[in-house]
Amino acid sequence: MTSTLFRNARIFTPLQSDRPLAGPEQGRVHVVPRGALLCTNGLIAAVGPEEEVLRKALRGELDLEVDCRGACMIPGFVDPHTHICFAARREREFALRLAGKSYLEILQEGGGILSSVEAVRSASEEELYRFTLKNVLSALRHGTTTMEIKSGYGLSTEAELKMLTVIDRIARETPLDVAATFMGGHAVPREYKDNPEAFVDLLVNEMIPAAARQGIARFCDVFCEQGVFSVTQSRRILQAARTAGFRLRIHADEVHDLGGAGLAAELGTVSAEHLLAANEANLKAMAASGVIADVLPATAYSLKKPYAPVRRMIELGVPVALATDCNPGSSFTESVPFVFGLGVLAMDMTVEEALTATTLNAAWSVEMHHRVGSLEEGKQADFLLLDGESPAILAYHAGVSSVMEVYKKGVRVA
Amino acid sequence: MTSTLFRNARIFTPLQSDRPLAGPEQGRVHVVPRGALLCTNGLIAAVGPEEEVLRKALRGELDLEVDCRGACMIPGFVDPHTHICFAARREREFALRLAGKSYLEILQEGGGILSSVEAVRSASEEELYRFTLKNVLSALRHGTTTMEIKSGYGLSTEAELKMLTVIDRIARETPLDVAATFMGGHAVPREYKDNPEAFVDLLVNEMIPAAARQGIARFCDVFCEQGVFSVTQSRRILQAARTAGFRLRIHADEVHDLGGAGLAAELGTVSAEHLLAANEANLKAMAASGVIADVLPATAYSLKKPYAPVRRMIELGVPVALATDCNPGSSFTESVPFVFGLGVLAMDMTVEEALTATTLNAAWSVEMHHRVGSLEEGKQADFLLLDGESPAILAYHAGVSSVMEVYKKGVRVA
Repeated sequence: MTSTLFRNARIFTPLQSDRPLAGPEQGRVHVVPRGALLCTNGLIAAVGPEEEVLRKALRGELDLEVDCRGACMIPGFVDPHTHICFAARREREFALRLAGKSYLEILQEGGGILSSVEAVRSASEEELYRFTLKNVLSALRHGTTTMEIKSGYGLSTEAELKMLTVIDRIARETPLDVAATFMGGHAVPREYKDNPEAFVDLLVNEMIPAAARQGIARFCDVFCEQGVFSVTQSRRILQAARTAGFRLRIHADEVHDLGGAGLAAELGTVSAEHLLAANEANLKAMAASGVIADVLPATAYSLKKPYAPVRRMIELGVPVALATDCNPGSSFTESVPFVFGLGVLAMDMTVEEALTATTLNAAWSVEMHHRVGSLEEGKQADFLLLDGESPAILAYHAGVSSVMEVYKKGVRVA
Repeated sequence: MTSTLFRNARIFTPLQSDRPLAGPEQGRVHVVPRGALLCTNGLIAAVGPEEEVLRKALRGELDLEVDCRGACMIPGFVDPHTHICFAARREREFALRLAGKSYLEILQEGGGILSSVEAVRSASEEELYRFTLKNVLSALRHGTTTMEIKSGYGLSTEAELKMLTVIDRIARETPLDVAATFMGGHAVPREYKDNPEAFVDLLVNEMIPAAARQGIARFCDVFCEQGVFSVTQSRRILQAARTAGFRLRIHADEVHDLGGAGLAAELGTVSAEHLLAANEANLKAMAASGVIADVLPATAYSLKKPYAPVRRMIELGVPVALATDCNPGSSFTESVPFVFGLGVLAMDMTVEEALTATTLNAAWSVEMHHRVGSLEEGKQADFLLLDGESPAILAYHAGVSSVMEVYKKGVRVA
């Protein structure tokens, strides 16, 4: 049994509840001005005021004692929405976008997602792994200790399974906890351009069952959007996925108010993503169904679009998580601190709401809330030490990561 | 004589002109797809297409050859506007601001600049140096190789001279080139609250002459703003400074359209800062006088305010530089890459315009354009290698610094 005591920390953490934190609960953060955390075999054996934790620690044997010198301690970040498994950047396309081309225009011209599909298809598994690993390790240095990663740049059975194999290797060969998501329904591949319905057939009849047999992905996601998959097609894909044993997510109402948020509520998906254009009635339906909103402000920032209506979501009782959406097109960032800052400064979240959104609610969004997302007894000792007095430093120190030290299961990993 | 050859780089640099680059010139960047840079004794002995530079290099003796492996090479960043010399952060005040207090309200309640004044006055020279050094070295890691630093948290002759001594020590004990600015006219100190005119007298009769005798500061700056110094007071301060031998800068029209931009044009200051509220007529007058606009987007971002009208400035022929405004209140960031990204994504500058604004025009703004700010023969070999194909990576890789390697006078310093 290995025990480490982390003393003299200012601890900020949301506290577990029986559901994701919504409404006023989203901003309720527990603060311990002079706290300690006792880690035994990677789990939190005790956490709270230093004196109390010391009393418990003295009963067992301590291998190591770490003085946090008053640093702010928060749970490790959970990034619940990434497409970080890709094989090439799209720096030149970024310049096209700046020159005025729209995201959907670039997509229709065979750029956008489809150029990433070509890169992933032609990359070897090893190449794809190396490329992905670099960005994942940078995310870890920025404080992400748990991450969702989607497939969706393969769009053939073989290439999607290759992506999921790489994602599984990231899960096994890095310190991070990884939630893998099958997203064969990310775009219609070039070869099905004139017959998208046949691609939906392929997804339902071949790809989803194959991904289920492979056993790596736990979630299935679909891009419900004008020019990609309709609400009807998305429903068919998600229902097939549910039958095959997947938990569900959906890219909903990013560009147009197509009704994806309503479909999320109807199917009771775990999360709905983007939601920039979602209407009020569908947001209310999401709140009633307990669907988590995965809000992606770096995408709005990078695409120069208005931000999702987060304040309204919180008023309506929708639990909000924040994510990077890390991908080579619309949001090339792996930094949760940056997204945290956008949450506070560009979307008017309070610091406390943003903390819940990047930790516990994000953990609910990947259904790992029983293990990560808050600093509580029995959970994994995944935490960060920040170069500041409180989580406000993440927004206050703008454009610079204030994550000083990253611990995963009690071990310093960055 | 020490010579180093940097080969196989994609070079992007603005080119020197007889004045700061304005209008269409602001976006004119010279590109060498496969370039090389020969550095001899810290200066650029040759730069351009690899073959040409190789020919010159073979004439002399080479000590070292560095393969840049196709990385993008740009001039080291020049940050022409910082208050990075301070003794304490203001993290708690940031939370107050988020809760709705305005910048000027906090200032009037004795917070804001005045709390930084207390911290600087009570800090020893060594404490102030240590605190400043940490942020300066972080700026260096983010690619800043030349930096302007203002006094202005002393507001007494003694404390202002102490700040300038610390700034001078930063200049001598770090690799950076530093331009020191005397800014005793940064706020009215508490002890002159009821008689601000007497503080202007003190500035004119005692502080400015003392700073001139000390010989560290090259520039004098003043905060011309409602509730701080009027246009009339600012004119008096700047004229006294000019008489004492200082070059001039002015914080103009940040919150209210007071006419500071017009005063900049009238006096022919080197630069005018902020300019969020400047009117069109005064911007035109600035263009006619060749005053550089130091635009500070991280301040607008951190204060949740609209951005300065940069596109209009460029249309009107005002040369634009970008700066961090690094300070403990309204813009705690030392990252030029972050400011570059805001320039492109939040203010609609092109990548090329932002590159000029963070290098050559910024060098003009601190009057070091003959030595730094572009990659040309005879200038210092101050350059960055970026983790990308072009300077677009600085905006495309959002919220993450893409600066891989930092060279000052040909020596790697970060």
